[in-house]
Amino acid sequence: MHRVVVVGAGFAGLSAARALIGKPVEVTIVDQRNFHTFQPLLYEVATAGLESGDVAYPIRVIFGKAANVSFRMDRVTGVDWERREVLLDGAVALPFDSLVVASGATAKFFGIPGASEHSFPLYTLTDARRLRDHILRRLEDVDAHPDGAAARGALTFVVVGGGPTGVEVAGALAELLDVAVKHDGFRFDRTAGRIVLVDALDRLLTPFKESAADYAAGTLAGRGIELRLGRMVKAVHADCVELDDGTDIPTRTVVWAGGVTVEHTVAGELGAPTGPNGRLVVRPDLTVAGHDDVYAVGDAAAVLWGPGDEGSAICPQVAQVAIQSGGHAARQILARIDGREPTPFRYKDKGIMATIGRRAAITQFRSGRVVRGTLGWLAWLSLHLVYLVGFRNKIVVFVNWSWRYLSWGSGPRIIVGEERAPGVDGVDQDRADGDHRD
Amino acid sequence: MHRVVVVGAGFAGLSAARALIGKPVEVTIVDQRNFHTFQPLLYEVATAGLESGDVAYPIRVIFGKAANVSFRMDRVTGVDWERREVLLDGAVALPFDSLVVASGATAKFFGIPGASEHSFPLYTLTDARRLRDHILRRLEDVDAHPDGAAARGALTFVVVGGGPTGVEVAGALAELLDVAVKHDGFRFDRTAGRIVLVDALDRLLTPFKESAADYAAGTLAGRGIELRLGRMVKAVHADCVELDDGTDIPTRTVVWAGGVTVEHTVAGELGAPTGPNGRLVVRPDLTVAGHDDVYAVGDAAAVLWGPGDEGSAICPQVAQVAIQSGGHAARQILARIDGREPTPFRYKDKGIMATIGRRAAITQFRSGRVVRGTLGWLAWLSLHLVYLVGFRNKIVVFVNWSWRYLSWGSGPRIIVGEERAPGVDGVDQDRADGDHRD
Repeated sequence: MHRVVVVGAGFAGLSAARALIGKPVEVTIVDQRNFHTFQPLLYEVATAGLESGDVAYPIRVIFGKAANVSFRMDRVTGVDWERREVLLDGAVALPFDSLVVASGATAKFFGIPGASEHSFPLYTLTDARRLRDHILRRLEDVDAHPDGAAARGALTFVVVGGGPTGVEVAGALAELLDVAVKHDGFRFDRTAGRIVLVDALDRLLTPFKESAADYAAGTLAGRGIELRLGRMVKAVHADCVELDDGTDIPTRTVVWAGGVTVEHTVAGELGAPTGPNGRLVVRPDLTVAGHDDVYAVGDAAAVLWGPGDEGSAICPQVAQVAIQSGGHAARQILARIDGREPTPFRYKDKGIMATIGRRAAITQFRSGRVVRGTLGWLAWLSLHLVYLVGFRNKIVVFVNWSWRYLSWGSGPRIIVGEERAPGVDGVDQDRADGDHRD
Repeated sequence: MHRVVVVGAGFAGLSAARALIGKPVEVTIVDQRNFHTFQPLLYEVATAGLESGDVAYPIRVIFGKAANVSFRMDRVTGVDWERREVLLDGAVALPFDSLVVASGATAKFFGIPGASEHSFPLYTLTDARRLRDHILRRLEDVDAHPDGAAARGALTFVVVGGGPTGVEVAGALAELLDVAVKHDGFRFDRTAGRIVLVDALDRLLTPFKESAADYAAGTLAGRGIELRLGRMVKAVHADCVELDDGTDIPTRTVVWAGGVTVEHTVAGELGAPTGPNGRLVVRPDLTVAGHDDVYAVGDAAAVLWGPGDEGSAICPQVAQVAIQSGGHAARQILARIDGREPTPFRYKDKGIMATIGRRAAITQFRSGRVVRGTLGWLAWLSLHLVYLVGFRNKIVVFVNWSWRYLSWGSGPRIIVGEERAPGVDGVDQDRADGDHRD
């Protein structure tokens, strides 16, 4: 039987493995976590709107009834190209006939001093939980020691990056501060809570049309978020952020939504040619140059929109690209087994979405049409519920959201971990951890 | 204004603080966690039936609208009796006129060699999460390295203690193994999975009638759980448990449900007279000898059933005692302020419950009447839903349970933490962490 190893159980890896259920192949999907993370909602976990379990789904449950797919929880340490085996931390190696690399990406800090040590990335569930604990601890700290809290930056939250993640986190943070003062008995003045969104470009949400970006900027500003556009971060310290215009912003919390790279993932160690941000260069059928039986998909790959000149642009690192490229790789593996010709990948753009908060989101369709406000928000809610893996999670998230919307009363604002410095085990933990958010 | 400090936000502390809402006192409730833990369902978290957030509720949400109650997240380090201040880790001390000690208990290991190092207690949410991660990791280990798994004890789970916690964990473990094999694609033989329940007494569930205990024993045995009654644990090692009959049981997982003590909690450091298991000796009105304004309640105290000879027995460390004694202490504080005479505490026994698993539970009413089987289980379900703090949690737990009952498909079988040795920070983390399970 033809053996397929899929590295990573994010959107891309899951999609590939699912497309191989019941086919004449023997599939092993490897991830160092035993769950799939629904990354588009990580910002909700980070801002205490959802529980971890609401955005995590056990991989084994997905493939429990698939006789030809097995799961291995382990860390991939490399590939033995001679013996055609994926090497695992747990000593046993996995031989393969075809390999699908869907190992995702990690936060990119652009060599900015202090960024990796003192800021909080938001790519994995561990990142999200750590950020949530940190934010809630800052509020407790302000409550217990109110003197000089604003001056020492305890109530200032700086978000670096004006893409969808940055906009979503900033909006959700504003809502968290509102709730903290209104419902949780925190005794600080809401106006003392600052949220600053920094981006090097002079507009937000670059993949969106200018009008959508303006709407987002207006909505964020209306909710009290300070925008610092066209500003670069020069350095991050434990107690402040330095911008390139000479400003120092005292803060204890820097959320890093400034971009991702593949350099420190399994894909980054394959020794295959890489493109921008370390993404693996792939041929139109998604195989890696020099390895006819090795596919790279999702965030780990520099996937082209389509074959030929018109499709020469590289796809963004979003969930839809991951899902579609994963499925395509699986179909190519089956085609090769059958002796059929490989077909080139062609991305079906279904539009992009970003949410700014309660009753404010943007959906931009492929046609360029933009739906925003309450309607955009409802569209965003529905789509994310549909894509959430697992019926139970859908119900729970729906209950949570309805409840928050109706009462603002609850939300899992609990601190579960011990306090530690951000990013300590970032790189290691993020390896083979799936694909990026949409 | 009369200042009341409540140490611990378990059932007893919450109950005391709630009874003081809107009264002419200024209340500060201190806990090192920012959430209340619904301890009776911790075994569900430990066996991956419920998410952590389903049994945790933010303390601030409970008192958010109470103008005279504030919350402080901090670790209590001691009491300055001269200055009448509760000392906190966070440097600021809390002055008090009345003090309510509701700091709970911790696992008691009876000096058994290796027990504290190599077994998993189940008193806090951290305990439950650590145990869940450990159990799920053992299953992954067996799947990845099936050879000799049974011999090295990877599939053997030993539960020490035949009280309600032990019985519940053993029953839920059996169900977890069933699901793992049936739905999660684990490739071990279900019959290779052993669950062993050990107790020094020759019967289970001592607070229950003999007939109820026999029913529990029969049900557990029918579900494949090995009972080792009348057996003491001599030592716990990383890879086995030694019993006093000379048997060695190879295992990697020892769940410690063998009893609790107050020695290592805040209460244990007050320097007040203590009774069995370090519980603070209290007078009939729940004040501590030598301190007229200091009340001890819940698991931390040796609460008497009632005044006089007939009530000389000490109450069990269960949720109902904690709830009732907490409320009583609050009423005594108010009585003293009004110049009224203190009244003695009198426990209203509402009966006791234990669940053995799906469609099998025991409810024993005060009259001695026992309801068991499916009816007992439904009674258990309803009662726990009613007592779960917070409407949202009730819905989520209800959805989870319904879903599990109908499909067995889901359940949050995710591993969230990094692997570490059990019990490493047990004592420290358990301090001031509320009251014991019912």
